[in-house]
Amino acid sequence: MISDGSKLAVFMLGALDDQIGKMGAGLLRYSPHEIVCVIEPGHAGGSIPAAIGIDHPAKIVATVDEAAALGADVFVLGIAPPGGQIPDDWYPWIDKAIAKGMSIVNGLHDHLGPKYPDLQNGQWIWDIRQEPEGKPAVTLRASKMPAKRVLLVGTDMSVGKMTVGLELHKEARAQGIKASFVATGQIGITIMGRGVPLDAVRLDFAAGFIEDAVVECADSDLIFVEGQGSLCHPDSNSPLPLFRGAQATHLIMCHRAGMDRLMRMQAVEVPPLRDLMKLCEDLAAGGGTFIRPVTAAVALNTAHLNAEEAAKAIADLEQEVGIPVDDPVRNGAEKLLNTVR
Amino acid sequence: MISDGSKLAVFMLGALDDQIGKMGAGLLRYSPHEIVCVIEPGHAGGSIPAAIGIDHPAKIVATVDEAAALGADVFVLGIAPPGGQIPDDWYPWIDKAIAKGMSIVNGLHDHLGPKYPDLQNGQWIWDIRQEPEGKPAVTLRASKMPAKRVLLVGTDMSVGKMTVGLELHKEARAQGIKASFVATGQIGITIMGRGVPLDAVRLDFAAGFIEDAVVECADSDLIFVEGQGSLCHPDSNSPLPLFRGAQATHLIMCHRAGMDRLMRMQAVEVPPLRDLMKLCEDLAAGGGTFIRPVTAAVALNTAHLNAEEAAKAIADLEQEVGIPVDDPVRNGAEKLLNTVR
Repeated sequence: MISDGSKLAVFMLGALDDQIGKMGAGLLRYSPHEIVCVIEPGHAGGSIPAAIGIDHPAKIVATVDEAAALGADVFVLGIAPPGGQIPDDWYPWIDKAIAKGMSIVNGLHDHLGPKYPDLQNGQWIWDIRQEPEGKPAVTLRASKMPAKRVLLVGTDMSVGKMTVGLELHKEARAQGIKASFVATGQIGITIMGRGVPLDAVRLDFAAGFIEDAVVECADSDLIFVEGQGSLCHPDSNSPLPLFRGAQATHLIMCHRAGMDRLMRMQAVEVPPLRDLMKLCEDLAAGGGTFIRPVTAAVALNTAHLNAEEAAKAIADLEQEVGIPVDDPVRNGAEKLLNTVR
Repeated sequence: MISDGSKLAVFMLGALDDQIGKMGAGLLRYSPHEIVCVIEPGHAGGSIPAAIGIDHPAKIVATVDEAAALGADVFVLGIAPPGGQIPDDWYPWIDKAIAKGMSIVNGLHDHLGPKYPDLQNGQWIWDIRQEPEGKPAVTLRASKMPAKRVLLVGTDMSVGKMTVGLELHKEARAQGIKASFVATGQIGITIMGRGVPLDAVRLDFAAGFIEDAVVECADSDLIFVEGQGSLCHPDSNSPLPLFRGAQATHLIMCHRAGMDRLMRMQAVEVPPLRDLMKLCEDLAAGGGTFIRPVTAAVALNTAHLNAEEAAKAIADLEQEVGIPVDDPVRNGAEKLLNTVR
């Protein structure tokens, strides 16, 4: 939806250095599009590296007018507040962006399209979190593709499945491999410009949309599919349609070092990693009906550890699970990529 | 939604003895409400037992006027055509029913509410297949209930999960057990008057709606949860939210005797029953995180066999799987019920 040559302004009012700004942070890290500025009056005039430690040259400005002066033609809501509603005080900013001729990218549950029905001159609103057109049904086409299909799975939500997939995708492309990344959440979709907003899709069609998205990557040799949720999280419905639609040949298990309970449900213990890996493989195989994927590696999120602690956590876990373990954000994605090449 | 004392007319135009009439047939078999007539001109004047072998005293009439004269105040679409669209030639019948003051029950994907916005005098339209209000999240409340929770699982779609659950529910009530049935498809929902239209729910909220529906049965000692789909069907997304929301203590595996491939996907073989039973239990347990249910019995659909063949199929399968097997439609539900009491 975001065309080549677009210039993005990322709206992060009061959230540049906050967890709810992870949509904007994801874009700054991985967007293939030019980001000309971040709009956040509280940090105006500052630099992105100084504010949040991401190496990006975008300016930080205070107004939509300044963004327009920098040539921005796409205004991206870079904040994901709890509940997914658009706060009232954002509307003057959105109104102004539209008045300045910008198109809008919105990854929240609230939709903007119906509120601005009369756009002209090629302006558009992309409400990412809504079911795409069509009522696709799985016909196991993914299983017949020659490409390797790598599904990111995890021990919890927010352990880094998208990040690991994007790092692997970036490394693969850097090595000249024909690689694709199938985004399944609003941040990944905004970064890639396409994908399946899985949590907004009706249950009946979930696996079908995934299969369609995977099959669209037919000219790739290596397809990374962004996972969602976890088989040990009680409110996680996405793993099954992801397994069925993607028919993965490889899994990479994503985990945060030292986490033994779900972050937002402390009553629930995370099972031993090998048990969860086996369950993922068993479920993917469907009792012998489908392809049985190999868990190729564990991607370990060590962001909260120092270098020495991280190295020890990686070595210890490698010992425990018997397959390669690494933190691709800290150490680069080469080691993990080698496990699925 | 259908109140006690309602009188139902079941619309089955040209579909009384057809597979697409299974919604109407389900109502005739299991509805707790009074069905005063079936509307089907092609069989008008005939009897339900003679037409489709279901023992029900409802008249078969040719017109909505006759249904109204019999006191019908709820008009139920008893046909589920492929694709779930409402054919144009049904509208004159629906218009007439509304003109006669009837309320409407519609289980198709097409919705009727928006087409009749100005109903009065307590008339209503129940479009079953739409997401209920709310954005529920699973908090594992079901797992703390003292009631036994029996989830029907299966080797395929349309092998009899709803029917087995309803037979078990009926038998339990007949024995004086406080039992509930949580419906999760449009036929079951129409029969019970409530439930979760799982295939029309957004993925994010699927398990949450199931948990809510199970928790609502708090005054029951035995809760049957209608299953959907199968872990060996590639286009089946429902099992995971059903496991997570229901936190079943028992599973009953439903299967059609002799079926070794999916009915509508002949390329896909059904795995050995014991493998599928183990996979269901493993997935429900989530690697040791949740309650591990026991597969208490296999419900075997033998409708296509004669008495001798059916008895042999049941005995052979019992030998194979090592747990009780029976066909509750043919032989009554007592044997299966005893396995979960």
